[in-house]
Amino acid sequence: MRFYRLLISYYTCMVDSLSTEKYGIVIKPNSTIAKEIALKVIKVLTKYNKQPILEKESKENYSDINTIDDFNIEINPPSKIIVIGGDGTLLRTVMREKTGNSIIMAIRAGKRGFMLDVEEYEVENKVYEFINNKFTLVEYPRLQPIFNGETKNCAMNDIVIFTSDGSLVKLDAYYNGDRIYGVDGDGIVVSTTIGSTAYSLSAGGPIIDPRLNSIILTPLNPVQLHIRPVVLPYSGYIDINIKDDSGNYFINIDGQEKIPSRSKSSLRITLCDKPAKIARFRWWENYYERLFSRLLSYW
Amino acid sequence: MRFYRLLISYYTCMVDSLSTEKYGIVIKPNSTIAKEIALKVIKVLTKYNKQPILEKESKENYSDINTIDDFNIEINPPSKIIVIGGDGTLLRTVMREKTGNSIIMAIRAGKRGFMLDVEEYEVENKVYEFINNKFTLVEYPRLQPIFNGETKNCAMNDIVIFTSDGSLVKLDAYYNGDRIYGVDGDGIVVSTTIGSTAYSLSAGGPIIDPRLNSIILTPLNPVQLHIRPVVLPYSGYIDINIKDDSGNYFINIDGQEKIPSRSKSSLRITLCDKPAKIARFRWWENYYERLFSRLLSYW
Amino acid sequence: MRFYRLLISYYTCMVDSLSTEKYGIVIKPNSTIAKEIALKVIKVLTKYNKQPILEKESKENYSDINTIDDFNIEINPPSKIIVIGGDGTLLRTVMREKTGNSIIMAIRAGKRGFMLDVEEYEVENKVYEFINNKFTLVEYPRLQPIFNGETKNCAMNDIVIFTSDGSLVKLDAYYNGDRIYGVDGDGIVVSTTIGSTAYSLSAGGPIIDPRLNSIILTPLNPVQLHIRPVVLPYSGYIDINIKDDSGNYFINIDGQEKIPSRSKSSLRITLCDKPAKIARFRWWENYYERLFSRLLSYW
Amino acid sequence: MRFYRLLISYYTCMVDSLSTEKYGIVIKPNSTIAKEIALKVIKVLTKYNKQPILEKESKENYSDINTIDDFNIEINPPSKIIVIGGDGTLLRTVMREKTGNSIIMAIRAGKRGFMLDVEEYEVENKVYEFINNKFTLVEYPRLQPIFNGETKNCAMNDIVIFTSDGSLVKLDAYYNGDRIYGVDGDGIVVSTTIGSTAYSLSAGGPIIDPRLNSIILTPLNPVQLHIRPVVLPYSGYIDINIKDDSGNYFINIDGQEKIPSRSKSSLRITLCDKPAKIARFRWWENYYERLFSRLLSYW
Repeated sequence: MRFYRLLISYYTCMVDSLSTEKYGIVIKPNSTIAKEIALKVIKVLTKYNKQPILEKESKENYSDINTIDDFNIEINPPSKIIVIGGDGTLLRTVMREKTGNSIIMAIRAGKRGFMLDVEEYEVENKVYEFINNKFTLVEYPRLQPIFNGETKNCAMNDIVIFTSDGSLVKLDAYYNGDRIYGVDGDGIVVSTTIGSTAYSLSAGGPIIDPRLNSIILTPLNPVQLHIRPVVLPYSGYIDINIKDDSGNYFINIDGQEKIPSRSKSSLRITLCDKPAKIARFRWWENYYERLFSRLLSYW
Repeated sequence: MRFYRLLISYYTCMVDSLSTEKYGIVIKPNSTIAKEIALKVIKVLTKYNKQPILEKESKENYSDINTIDDFNIEINPPSKIIVIGGDGTLLRTVMREKTGNSIIMAIRAGKRGFMLDVEEYEVENKVYEFINNKFTLVEYPRLQPIFNGETKNCAMNDIVIFTSDGSLVKLDAYYNGDRIYGVDGDGIVVSTTIGSTAYSLSAGGPIIDPRLNSIILTPLNPVQLHIRPVVLPYSGYIDINIKDDSGNYFINIDGQEKIPSRSKSSLRITLCDKPAKIARFRWWENYYERLFSRLLSYW
Repeated sequence: MRFYRLLISYYTCMVDSLSTEKYGIVIKPNSTIAKEIALKVIKVLTKYNKQPILEKESKENYSDINTIDDFNIEINPPSKIIVIGGDGTLLRTVMREKTGNSIIMAIRAGKRGFMLDVEEYEVENKVYEFINNKFTLVEYPRLQPIFNGETKNCAMNDIVIFTSDGSLVKLDAYYNGDRIYGVDGDGIVVSTTIGSTAYSLSAGGPIIDPRLNSIILTPLNPVQLHIRPVVLPYSGYIDINIKDDSGNYFINIDGQEKIPSRSKSSLRITLCDKPAKIARFRWWENYYERLFSRLLSYW
Repeated sequence: MRFYRLLISYYTCMVDSLSTEKYGIVIKPNSTIAKEIALKVIKVLTKYNKQPILEKESKENYSDINTIDDFNIEINPPSKIIVIGGDGTLLRTVMREKTGNSIIMAIRAGKRGFMLDVEEYEVENKVYEFINNKFTLVEYPRLQPIFNGETKNCAMNDIVIFTSDGSLVKLDAYYNGDRIYGVDGDGIVVSTTIGSTAYSLSAGGPIIDPRLNSIILTPLNPVQLHIRPVVLPYSGYIDINIKDDSGNYFINIDGQEKIPSRSKSSLRITLCDKPAKIARFRWWENYYERLFSRLLSYW
């Protein structure tokens, strides 16, 4: 049985480890825990003769981590990057790494962050495995938004059309040119499979297994009480046409980029040609137990 | 059996009709239908020797209705006002009429507007009945918000704490000083009974019978998946304490007044000492049939 | 401010303690924990010179608790009864005590049972307080079902119309003769305020504050996607008219009594003239914190 | 782009029409409309020199349609069958046709029945097209239940574990051996993609696009308030383990076959090796518009 054929390319990474001298580090801002973990990571990398380099913004935020070089993730990202923080830090890193070539390891610092699968206590072991390519490389499909004809950044979790002032957003949603329904409400979430456990879930959407290729539409507090979330194949294209008489709104890409707009607009969403490449260490080990126990911890 | 004791004072209006010479008119802006209905209303009032006077903003919006006097609703509201438009027009009129003494008749112009119970085709008859005090006066309880110690306008439908940029709003909700729960999400709706069929309903709240005195708390897309709407007696007080690390948000009073804010704040909500006084012509006649058929029409 | 006027008669109990020699005990069947607690209760009662008497069915279930007398709760209930078990044991006891005069103390044995507010560790103290009338007597309104003209047992939590074989139940719901809506689905829950945190909550109903007098209608998996739970004043009457072409179903009263039926029937529900009298020791102390922490424990 | 690769084999049917002399007819019992349509169908078939034959049970129900031969669908089903009725009639026909070779045309008679895409007014045209193989053959994946080791009938819509008396069903759900979550409630729905718009939808499940291969788990009124529907790839297997202390329940296969059971049991669900073969005449033409307008008609 081959589950992962479409959604996820699983393979044991064969990257030549000799050429991966430099390891990029991205740290969540204003977080004592994230900084402490980063220092630990730097120590481990150095111990194994790898060169840690600090992403520029992170360096500015933690100016006292001054012994190492920095890099501009939007210009010359290293082939391996270690992200330390929450979901936001990971999503922002993936968005800014535009070549789509870097492999990202994700260490959780703080309460939230289901997508980050390495915990603080195991940093030493997992960084060692990352160096030695002992992980599963998972390629997550992303969504490509085209807003009024203009190509925007791809989203790993979701693209949200959202009221900017509480007034009613009015739109029609289409799949491959066929109208699904109209939504008058706070807006709509267009989510990837992996994003189904993020904002879409809070908004009433279902949990989609990561092995299933899909795009989820979740209307936000619609006036139309009978409409429901719809799960679609990711091979097609979505159109969200915002109506003439809609209230003001913005497009929110992974919570990282916000594009304010008003009245009539069209948003097309297709599959992004560059998936996100994440190194996973325990992806399927008790996936749902970990998911629901994480969800329950928000108390 | 006396259902209406607490929520609603039902009585056949005994106002001395001799003294109510002037009838205020408020018209929804930019609406051809609303304007047409207004002209009809003016004609009927004139026919019965009543003096129609136009609310100042409405006069500015419809400068060609120039034959009649105007009034400033915030300074000298007449004792009887006829509102023509949708829910927004009615809510805004109630908010601006600060004496709490005017009796308001509500004529629906357009698709939405369940709270407006007079239809275009029956304008002549119902205005005649309004003049002759042949209606049921219903007093709707309103909510009094006190934001960071400052008293704000009362709300007839709801007071909403809402993210201003899609970032996570974090708050705790209390009733009479007892903590109900924390909400990390888009915010929370604090609704009156009559507001239960408006935004709260779209957000997953229940429908509350207008004869029941209540305040409804409806969390907006919370990260905490197990929390639910809570219905409370309107005799107590609500506290919404927004946390230090909350994202930016605004307080939205009846969709008419928006107070932007950020980080730590406290919002107390109690019963407003001035209920809204609405003239009703068919309030209980098929209430639920009309409600659900209106809800279904949003297609 | 007087919150409890309608729903709940709160008063410090003034029952003459000299006359309350006998204390009834009801024990959940097949529960080692419940039995152990019962033995502890018997010991405490004896210590304070009160006579413990065992409810007949409980005596049959625990034949080795043989040193004490028994009583038939349906014929001669004592004025004070101690229930040990879960919600089911309490609901069944209330249903069988038909005089409505007994005051019931509720000790939780096992995982579930939010309505039972005494924990095992505090049995000694609380039984002492029960003996000395140091508690708040709370009178919970109950619902009186009349099925096809025949009066049935009152319900403390809920009356459920429920499919008996998975086929579609078709019904119309009315309040005071006005039609609310039709439901084609698994049935409908008619719940008291206190029952709002039981089955109705699982079925999508709101949480109602115990101080609010209400009846909640919660449709069960309806084909009509736009209908919602409705909260009504408890002073009116509900009619559930099951249609001619409905599938088979049964009426479930508090999960304790099940009345099978089929096709056209009418169920009228009004307020029961005998509320349930429960001795409360901490009703308002952190009510919602306890509620949600109990709800979260079902993991 | 090829959407239908996994779920649906779309092809213009190439069956040799010379050999399809006999056309089976199945009619919903006790329906005047269904009978009238059936007479029309028989007329059209006869006109084009095809031999209509009546399914045995249908013949018994409509003994006055006496001029034609009958067939036993469980023994010798013809290669083409025309079903006239609602979803139930179609589901029952698919279940009883065990060879998996017959191609089924579905004519709607009555209010419900989204899966039946031919309307009464177009019977003449569509039967003609069915005869001449002018349709799209859609193969719907079905679910194979194995209950306590015993293979049962496949389901086209859903397999439901459901309380038989309103008592709490307790179960654990697994996917490919990994635990998803426990459910204490009325049971759980295991649905196909096409079944997502049937019972699962009423129970809070999402709408799944027919082009997406999936199995949907939808818990029924669970005590665990934080759990949600989960959408899984149809290539894996589901295990539902009912617990020792569960209340009584039954397994409901497509609403057509009910297997009563109690306490500890295991239900395994995999893909059925025989999909249902349905002739479609307008499957993708305005799919969602038709879906939601059908859903809205349940008023």
